[in-house]
Amino acid sequence: MRAVVFENYERFPSLTDAPEPRPGPGEVLLRVAGAGACHSDVSVYRHFKEGSPGAQRPPFVLGHENAGWVEELGEGVSDRVEVGAAHLVYGPIGCGHCRMCARGRDTYCENAATMPYLAVGLGRDGGMAEYMTVPAHHLVPLGDADPVDAAPLADAGLTPYHAIKQALPHLAGGGRHALVIGLGGLGQIGVQILGALTGATVIATDVKPEARARAERNGAVTVGGGDRQVEEIREITGGRGVDAAFDFVGITPTIAAAAGAMAQGGRLSVVGIAGGTHEFSFFTNPYESYVTNTYWGTVGELWEVVDMYRAGRIRPEVERFAMEDALEAYRRLEAGEISGRAVVVPNEA
Amino acid sequence: MRAVVFENYERFPSLTDAPEPRPGPGEVLLRVAGAGACHSDVSVYRHFKEGSPGAQRPPFVLGHENAGWVEELGEGVSDRVEVGAAHLVYGPIGCGHCRMCARGRDTYCENAATMPYLAVGLGRDGGMAEYMTVPAHHLVPLGDADPVDAAPLADAGLTPYHAIKQALPHLAGGGRHALVIGLGGLGQIGVQILGALTGATVIATDVKPEARARAERNGAVTVGGGDRQVEEIREITGGRGVDAAFDFVGITPTIAAAAGAMAQGGRLSVVGIAGGTHEFSFFTNPYESYVTNTYWGTVGELWEVVDMYRAGRIRPEVERFAMEDALEAYRRLEAGEISGRAVVVPNEA
Amino acid sequence: MRAVVFENYERFPSLTDAPEPRPGPGEVLLRVAGAGACHSDVSVYRHFKEGSPGAQRPPFVLGHENAGWVEELGEGVSDRVEVGAAHLVYGPIGCGHCRMCARGRDTYCENAATMPYLAVGLGRDGGMAEYMTVPAHHLVPLGDADPVDAAPLADAGLTPYHAIKQALPHLAGGGRHALVIGLGGLGQIGVQILGALTGATVIATDVKPEARARAERNGAVTVGGGDRQVEEIREITGGRGVDAAFDFVGITPTIAAAAGAMAQGGRLSVVGIAGGTHEFSFFTNPYESYVTNTYWGTVGELWEVVDMYRAGRIRPEVERFAMEDALEAYRRLEAGEISGRAVVVPNEA
Amino acid sequence: MRAVVFENYERFPSLTDAPEPRPGPGEVLLRVAGAGACHSDVSVYRHFKEGSPGAQRPPFVLGHENAGWVEELGEGVSDRVEVGAAHLVYGPIGCGHCRMCARGRDTYCENAATMPYLAVGLGRDGGMAEYMTVPAHHLVPLGDADPVDAAPLADAGLTPYHAIKQALPHLAGGGRHALVIGLGGLGQIGVQILGALTGATVIATDVKPEARARAERNGAVTVGGGDRQVEEIREITGGRGVDAAFDFVGITPTIAAAAGAMAQGGRLSVVGIAGGTHEFSFFTNPYESYVTNTYWGTVGELWEVVDMYRAGRIRPEVERFAMEDALEAYRRLEAGEISGRAVVVPNEA
Repeated sequence: MRAVVFENYERFPSLTDAPEPRPGPGEVLLRVAGAGACHSDVSVYRHFKEGSPGAQRPPFVLGHENAGWVEELGEGVSDRVEVGAAHLVYGPIGCGHCRMCARGRDTYCENAATMPYLAVGLGRDGGMAEYMTVPAHHLVPLGDADPVDAAPLADAGLTPYHAIKQALPHLAGGGRHALVIGLGGLGQIGVQILGALTGATVIATDVKPEARARAERNGAVTVGGGDRQVEEIREITGGRGVDAAFDFVGITPTIAAAAGAMAQGGRLSVVGIAGGTHEFSFFTNPYESYVTNTYWGTVGELWEVVDMYRAGRIRPEVERFAMEDALEAYRRLEAGEISGRAVVVPNEA
Repeated sequence: MRAVVFENYERFPSLTDAPEPRPGPGEVLLRVAGAGACHSDVSVYRHFKEGSPGAQRPPFVLGHENAGWVEELGEGVSDRVEVGAAHLVYGPIGCGHCRMCARGRDTYCENAATMPYLAVGLGRDGGMAEYMTVPAHHLVPLGDADPVDAAPLADAGLTPYHAIKQALPHLAGGGRHALVIGLGGLGQIGVQILGALTGATVIATDVKPEARARAERNGAVTVGGGDRQVEEIREITGGRGVDAAFDFVGITPTIAAAAGAMAQGGRLSVVGIAGGTHEFSFFTNPYESYVTNTYWGTVGELWEVVDMYRAGRIRPEVERFAMEDALEAYRRLEAGEISGRAVVVPNEA
Repeated sequence: MRAVVFENYERFPSLTDAPEPRPGPGEVLLRVAGAGACHSDVSVYRHFKEGSPGAQRPPFVLGHENAGWVEELGEGVSDRVEVGAAHLVYGPIGCGHCRMCARGRDTYCENAATMPYLAVGLGRDGGMAEYMTVPAHHLVPLGDADPVDAAPLADAGLTPYHAIKQALPHLAGGGRHALVIGLGGLGQIGVQILGALTGATVIATDVKPEARARAERNGAVTVGGGDRQVEEIREITGGRGVDAAFDFVGITPTIAAAAGAMAQGGRLSVVGIAGGTHEFSFFTNPYESYVTNTYWGTVGELWEVVDMYRAGRIRPEVERFAMEDALEAYRRLEAGEISGRAVVVPNEA
Repeated sequence: MRAVVFENYERFPSLTDAPEPRPGPGEVLLRVAGAGACHSDVSVYRHFKEGSPGAQRPPFVLGHENAGWVEELGEGVSDRVEVGAAHLVYGPIGCGHCRMCARGRDTYCENAATMPYLAVGLGRDGGMAEYMTVPAHHLVPLGDADPVDAAPLADAGLTPYHAIKQALPHLAGGGRHALVIGLGGLGQIGVQILGALTGATVIATDVKPEARARAERNGAVTVGGGDRQVEEIREITGGRGVDAAFDFVGITPTIAAAAGAMAQGGRLSVVGIAGGTHEFSFFTNPYESYVTNTYWGTVGELWEVVDMYRAGRIRPEVERFAMEDALEAYRRLEAGEISGRAVVVPNEA
């Protein structure tokens, strides 16, 4: 079958032929409907080296945002998993035997350090191929919703959902304000989720005017970059600051902007993995506010993301690429030419 | 001054002359902008007898949903309370010295049983008059928002807000469903609050088609009464049932309908004081779901209700009556001829 | 191998020879260290009929509270599961593919109605035998803690833990009171867990003096039965009532006693499956208090129960029976002659 | 009357004669039973300058940890406040008219910047005197518990209680670990509160062996300073780290030690006002853990602290000083010679 393979560190991936995988015990074989191309793939093949934190040993098929149709059940898989039905794939795969995996929180698997991979498409073969295998309990049924548009939700939906869900107690009530920094794929879906799940005024900021315009169509009040950015955000909040902020960029200046806009008791979730830093000081930190980091999400949460998608509350913007154009998707992603999310479509429905 | 006075049990109130009150230490004198007429006033003068639970000794001025302009500060009141500014009044007044009052939860005052009154307009002179006095810390500033429309929020806004706020953890996430039973004044505002603060599908039910039509304009999916009521509600939820229900009627059949529609882990808040009952049984109760009752709300929550009102997220529907027509407001309320909320307007802005 | 088999409805189980099971894909074979005998087993073989709610079709090996040593790994099981190591078994087994199972909440599996069994020992072969099979992800490692004493924790520890954990927000702070009704196996462990995890004054009640004495040794204040029971409980709370109650009996009179002792905002969890009922009424229910039911617990919680056991915070009282005396354990359990928990020990360490 | 007066910045306080105060409207006059001497008093008179953050303009009577007997009621105070009864004083005094004060959260008063004082003993006359005045709703009744020993609870009890109460969700369950850094007055009471309210293993650290010995008597496992401090803490947690940490020192090295010991999802509350800093970085911060700061507590929480004190769950260690020896108390406090808390006793019971 055709597949996009990450062959070695610091090398652009190849579109090549790979053997069709076979499902092991407890796994299913999936005919891939859509596989999203994500900026973290670029980190994998462009920036990581052997031994970098988070680096996964090549070669493997890329693609950690996947949806597809069940083609075949491995040994021991219940026939409750319907062959032919469309499913979204929960990507992270933990050891399956620790207290975190027991709760469906594979992202925080206690044995992650000794696992041979982090997720499908991150160390283990992913979905940028005609077929892939997945543990059966990592599937979330999509019903009759479109699996191609759904594919990005496995990361670009789940990641903001997880960050937002933890912040919901901060936004539970009247008069709250939320801030979204960085209006790319995750940020736009973050704006949609905040608008759907909370009564907060959603303030969104990005340097790109077209990204702000899109956020406004999703109900956000927007603020540009520049010297008065923090001041403008605080003005919208009536001076109190934001009760929850989500930084999908994660460089030091964006964290500083979010931290500068925090209300007492506010929560700032840094989601973007740009490695920015922030200095806590007792005297400058608004009381009981804090900065933290979150990573991807849980399988239980992915069920809720799919609920929202099926109910039309999340509407990913997707640009489709044929399998043979998969590398072009990555090229355009690197060039900053993708608006919304690029999804490779290896098979027809 | 002119005032609507509840003069004795089981007697329709009088519109009469009463002495203008003077603010005591810690109180303010308020020039009343609006005073809402509430069904519980009808219980006070129509149904209660000396010694009924909840009965308050006459005579007193009615009106527990009030807004007005600060006219004069009593001794010891900080001049931070701006004379001339419009405020909404937190009605419940507890002893001020117990653990509940310490948190602004006067509704659950530990000394309620020995208090001479429950609230302004309930034992203590209320706002159906040109002037009233209130403890200064029971005022919530309205800014430039209209105090007449705001008046009902003191009860018809705060009561559903309090019930909903406690249920928010049950509604925090994708794929949730909420049920509102009874689409009168409180229920309609309840629908608005649920739509604003949660991502739940809001299901609303009432026997009156025009009430359902109004709820639909506020974003609800509606269901009529009748034999298939519970079944229709469950169908909307995909069979899982509702995660939170709010019964603003509170008779045995409405509680039964709500209980029959509950999901595992759901919360049913009975708010209507019709005194209905419901039988819990281990084998029929959806696991971890429950029925409870709530009463009015806290002053802290009233600040949040005002935030939502000022932001346009709550829009009470109000029918205004001049002071001299105040009794007519009660007559029409009893006749079921008020849509929305009747507000008596004793003074011009 | 020797096994205690439930052969037909309304028939006392047999100690008989059964074929040694083989682990399927994703399962392990366990050499059983201990299997607890539980009152619900008695319901299974004594009271249920074909079609009773909760009835599971015979024949099967009894035993849903099990611990043992991993003997062999089935296909696809990671070698992270250490052969020879002692584990406690999470008993409930859901479909594995619904939103509840995705969170390790097999007890509330959305497909429970169409599952061929509820749990090991409840429809599927359990641990009252020399060997049993279990899905590998249902194992919780015991380290060097004694697996025989641990066995009852799979139900008699997990069930109160689950009920208590949900009530923790009600007990989070100074000046709280908790009530435990029914001081058998689950109740005694409930008293231990409440004492360990909360600062609440733990009030325990039972008609048997020796059961009360044991609860006192575990730190509880006790109250006997009788007319003044509720009054005595309320006195201990200074009149405010209890913030959380746990009824491990579940008959109508015990639910009534607990409900009569509730504080405003209190939570009453009925855990005992005796099928008692309770009538909610708006005017008699302490505001915002409620009655609910809980069932067993989650695998994530079982990890925490094991943490408490390994740290010495839970100390089950166990009476051991050799495999050949297993039926005697059930006879004595039915006769009310077991203090603590009867554990059948099919193999030596 | 005799009083300890802070007369000017950077000057040791004086024991002098001051006029006996009169209670204003809504206030009571208190005959002081005990007034604790706190390290923040030392900051006030030793380190602050005009305009320092937190500085309060002299002169005023020191003492923000006070208990006493009600001597006289000001105008408008309900006679529910019992003359002669012992009460603990909630020290912070906000504007009384903002959303924070409405909830009894005077510490986070939205108008703090324009208030003439922060608290009794901090800008407004405090309790280091024979008499003081307090807003009546700032009193918490002590019943028959000793008011002298109680005095320090107004700060040294309430401050750790507030920090711990917010962290309780992190400690709610089996297998949790808590860390207390700095075993002076607040830290020792912190250890007691954690032991009473949670099932966490409490790890306590301080460079002074005698402070560690006292913490061990309160149930903590202790660790000394030095190079292996963080490593030793992590070992006690089985490598997972602590779920909640409380730094009562707050210098950069103690924050670093606590941060180095955090578990995923852990909460570090910096309570000590030494102004230390900590750098957040996405890649080094354990996922979903965070550092925050808390300040004093709420009046509602002080009721719960008193509940714990009256139930014997908090036992402050107190060294008593006669009024005439009050300055000696401060001298010894500065010299590090006070173990527990110094309490000045201006009046006999």
